[in-house]
Amino acid sequence: MKDISRNLTMLCDYYELTMANGYFKTDIKDKTVYFDVFYRNNPDNGGYAIVAGLEQIVEYVLDLKFTDEDIEYLRSKKCFDEDFLEYLRTFKFNGDIWAIPEGTVVFPGEPLMTVRASAMEAQFIETYVLMMINHQSLIATKASRLTRAAKGRAISEFGSRRAHGADAAILGARAAYIGGCGATACTIVEEAYGVPATGTMAHAWVQMFDTEYEAFKTYCEIYPDNATLLVDTYNVIESGIPNAIKAFREVLVPKGIKKCGIRIDSGDVTYLTKKARKMLDDAGFDYCKIIISNSMDEYIIRELIRQGAEIDAFGVGERLITAKSDPVFGGVYKLCAIEDNDGNVNPKIKISENVGKITTPHFKKIYRLRNRENGKAEADLICVYDEVIDDTKPIEIFDPVHTWKRKVMENYTATELQVPIFEKGKLVYELPDIKAIRQHCADEIEGMWDEVRRFNNPHNYYVDLSEKLWKIKDDMISEYRKKK
Amino acid sequence: MKDISRNLTMLCDYYELTMANGYFKTDIKDKTVYFDVFYRNNPDNGGYAIVAGLEQIVEYVLDLKFTDEDIEYLRSKKCFDEDFLEYLRTFKFNGDIWAIPEGTVVFPGEPLMTVRASAMEAQFIETYVLMMINHQSLIATKASRLTRAAKGRAISEFGSRRAHGADAAILGARAAYIGGCGATACTIVEEAYGVPATGTMAHAWVQMFDTEYEAFKTYCEIYPDNATLLVDTYNVIESGIPNAIKAFREVLVPKGIKKCGIRIDSGDVTYLTKKARKMLDDAGFDYCKIIISNSMDEYIIRELIRQGAEIDAFGVGERLITAKSDPVFGGVYKLCAIEDNDGNVNPKIKISENVGKITTPHFKKIYRLRNRENGKAEADLICVYDEVIDDTKPIEIFDPVHTWKRKVMENYTATELQVPIFEKGKLVYELPDIKAIRQHCADEIEGMWDEVRRFNNPHNYYVDLSEKLWKIKDDMISEYRKKK
Repeated sequence: MKDISRNLTMLCDYYELTMANGYFKTDIKDKTVYFDVFYRNNPDNGGYAIVAGLEQIVEYVLDLKFTDEDIEYLRSKKCFDEDFLEYLRTFKFNGDIWAIPEGTVVFPGEPLMTVRASAMEAQFIETYVLMMINHQSLIATKASRLTRAAKGRAISEFGSRRAHGADAAILGARAAYIGGCGATACTIVEEAYGVPATGTMAHAWVQMFDTEYEAFKTYCEIYPDNATLLVDTYNVIESGIPNAIKAFREVLVPKGIKKCGIRIDSGDVTYLTKKARKMLDDAGFDYCKIIISNSMDEYIIRELIRQGAEIDAFGVGERLITAKSDPVFGGVYKLCAIEDNDGNVNPKIKISENVGKITTPHFKKIYRLRNRENGKAEADLICVYDEVIDDTKPIEIFDPVHTWKRKVMENYTATELQVPIFEKGKLVYELPDIKAIRQHCADEIEGMWDEVRRFNNPHNYYVDLSEKLWKIKDDMISEYRKKK
Repeated sequence: MKDISRNLTMLCDYYELTMANGYFKTDIKDKTVYFDVFYRNNPDNGGYAIVAGLEQIVEYVLDLKFTDEDIEYLRSKKCFDEDFLEYLRTFKFNGDIWAIPEGTVVFPGEPLMTVRASAMEAQFIETYVLMMINHQSLIATKASRLTRAAKGRAISEFGSRRAHGADAAILGARAAYIGGCGATACTIVEEAYGVPATGTMAHAWVQMFDTEYEAFKTYCEIYPDNATLLVDTYNVIESGIPNAIKAFREVLVPKGIKKCGIRIDSGDVTYLTKKARKMLDDAGFDYCKIIISNSMDEYIIRELIRQGAEIDAFGVGERLITAKSDPVFGGVYKLCAIEDNDGNVNPKIKISENVGKITTPHFKKIYRLRNRENGKAEADLICVYDEVIDDTKPIEIFDPVHTWKRKVMENYTATELQVPIFEKGKLVYELPDIKAIRQHCADEIEGMWDEVRRFNNPHNYYVDLSEKLWKIKDDMISEYRKKK
């Protein structure tokens, strides 16, 4: 695989450094603290999200290093202590990280990642960790929605030219593949991450030749095994398809090649594809694939399929690579506990007048409870780190807001969602290959009820707190309100 | 400046390579062709855009290089000729590029960049060129809108954690600075691009201490010259501001420091800032700045100011760095001319049933016509490359669609917008430093009438075609329609 990494230790919010310098100068320096990454709302008001970005976080953590140049720059800000700059010179991450593996279906409020480290280390990695999870989870979730809308038809990621810079194009294509896309138009993504790269021609190819027919015929001659012709440079019905048929007949048919395609990038897709399908079928090219690539998203794809548009595959560009309809994945990184000098874990909470913004305190773990008969996920349960669920016994779960909503579950399995990634700075997780991550994601989607996968007004999947965790949180809120 | 570049030659759509291989195998190989970059609609239905991204395109063009590893990967695709792979081994850009300098106000339909090169070279750079211009122009335009909404109040870019990957964070912050932001929260952007990096504390800082007061006091002691305190971890009015005042009094006042600030990141901004201003003023801290940073965009900023919110500066995160309300800048790259063997430039057009998608053919240049008295821009005129506007004589301009809309301009200056960047592969443009680009952008905005700068229903700035160019385009469309 091509290595396109670079050291981005300095890609941090400046306040991570001012805070770290501050901790370093107080007794917070020696404290072990816990931070959670979680998000509050599913993109596009959907029923779930797909978490992604862990592999790049692992690389980042392993690569953390301040160069002499970085230290010199920081010194020039006249803001940091010399002792602290000296500390940065050998800075590395020595803590623990647990995370939910990439490609897993996740829900609001769940700790996607938990970091346990010194205050400086845990604080410092905030910006990069959030950026990676927010970006790739956003795109993987969008790709999952698109894939489901397409009902088995292939979707290729076509968006590099509209991506927000190189990493948005490259890692966006990686995340799109995890979420269900089958390929990308972006070459480097195959070379660096193993996502299949595909593509044939743009309008420029057609314009370069004196006639559309000549452009098509030449392309078929050069690429007889991969002839997907772009038929809308002039007029799809009047020239594009007739010329494509002529080129297929003259070049591919004599070779006995029964693989070809047309791509339409403009116009009314339902009308054009129905007409195109009939023209191709009548000419004996019922095996010719029809590919569509004009500002698609999950809503348009669903509507086109409902209208009976004849489409075999989609190329999806800007609306996938920017997640146009909802381009922000709002993951946050919040302090949830501090260890005292005796190693006791003391929960921390952030109170807010906005109840949705009150954090769930403590060092936690998450179980996913699945129906033992059909494997479908029924609920997730967030517990205190030292709780263990025995899934041979019935369990009563309850809604953490409307606590009278209770349900006893039997015949279920309980699986922990987070797995250890780093232990005392050492990588203890074997990063799966991207095909395995993509398969895991497909299995995860399969393991959700349809109600959760619905685009509009999906069922709110249960993410409950254990009795113990709920009580700790409730007591902390009460104690705070008493103080007022 | 820190060098964070990496070679991204392979960041290209795969079809650029299949097309280039195809050109290479036909007589198109020897043709010199012209491509334009242009866009069709201003983001957010605004009246203008700010072009940006040129500096990174220059670096990309200078760095173009296929490694042995790249060639080996391409060979494994079993799609490319050995001659072509051999050609790629020494591939570089030998053509000409003209572009509108970064920070310039631009309008739909204008060639932001024109590329003249061999068909292979000109085709190959499409993906990266579009990605850079689309991304940075998007963010620079958004920042320009935010800056105007803030009416002179400083705006800092705070969005790294919600950016679509590292380049979105870094180059997004660069573009935001060009468009008018004064600083960024992202450290590496200062080290690599010279955009001032700032920041103080997050909620975690406050939570790390036993009390809010202790957190504030400690921060003031460590950073007496840069004490901006985040006052909404518990309750802005009841604890945050009283504790901030107490810390300022105990630490800053004895030192005679009259520079401090508070930041509010949640709640009703109008209510809280009015109340905060009064509390601070009553306590003698009328010089304390109030900074706001909760999901701001240009519409909310404008409304807050209308309501009399007491705000000195804004931190703008996700809605700037993703351009949330309209996250796609739709720049395209279209063939506009091909030279014949005698060096004649033959215009090329792309016809579409959608009239808005018909391209303007030919190798072109653009003039901006400014009122000689007040310097305000009145219209842009797109001409054929060999036309020269003599601005000592009156000129009649006309709407290219409603051609009866005509206007004679006198007492104007005509300035060409595009400047030479590369000549025969050699860089001939001196890249301005980022402060100069930002100043140029500010001057450009100043040079536009208010009607163009309006957020809602702005005046459609005139972008007209010269009589000669209009006639060439009209003849080509008529000729095409006759053929049908």
